Amino acid sequence: MNDKINLAAKLALLDEPYKPGVVGHLNDYKLQVVKVKGPFVWHKHDETDDFFLVLSGRLTIHLRDRDVELEPGEIFVVPRGVEHCPEAEDETHVLLIEPRDTVNTGDAGGEMTASPRLI
Amino acid sequence: MNDKINLAAKLALLDEPYKPGVVGHLNDYKLQVVKVKGPFVWHKHDETDDFFLVLSGRLTIHLRDRDVELEPGEIFVVPRGVEHCPEAEDETHVLLIEPRDTVNTGDAGGEMTASPRLI
Repeated sequence: MNDKINLAAKLALLDEPYKPGVVGHLNDYKLQVVKVKGPFVWHKHDETDDFFLVLSGRLTIHLRDRDVELEPGEIFVVPRGVEHCPEAEDETHVLLIEPRDTVNTGDAGGEMTASPRLI
Repeated sequence: MNDKINLAAKLALLDEPYKPGVVGHLNDYKLQVVKVKGPFVWHKHDETDDFFLVLSGRLTIHLRDRDVELEPGEIFVVPRGVEHCPEAEDETHVLLIEPRDTVNTGDAGGEMTASPRLI
């Protein structure tokens, strides 16, 4: 049986922005924490929506037609197929939920692609 | 396109414990907020895990062999098929994530069964 997950304790194990840690699973979804700082890459996921919950800090999710600004306690679900680019000026902590096989950089690939690692 | 979801603002729309409000979706999952106060009912979901994230307050998830105590920023995923009974002494706010067709009282049914309502 799994144990409870303390998100702040898990985030303390991360040392780099945009290197998510998998903290648990919900059926075939992975629960991930990530530190965001600076801009990510524009990408989209054609097969899945993308769940962001801000835990601390402030996250901008750039969309092609607008920006979504998230503060702690705010969720945004990027619909499947919609291009987006997360960015944070100061270090921001986020809970991400996606299907287990989702790649963080979606269709974009490149050097910011991170392999899932359990923390 | 959906908009961002402020969890505290959504919780302010709820007036009764154990009457969850659906605040959004992630693919075929519903994102729900709920106020917990007092004991719920023992139940299980044979088809799905059950995600709890405490936003404020303190939640006890009774399992048959132990209790899991959750504070804000803590997640517990009840594995499918495992009997559980949530309880909170003082009003506690929770984010729940489950497949869209999941019934809150699982196999138990009864008067605490709540229909999903979008808030």
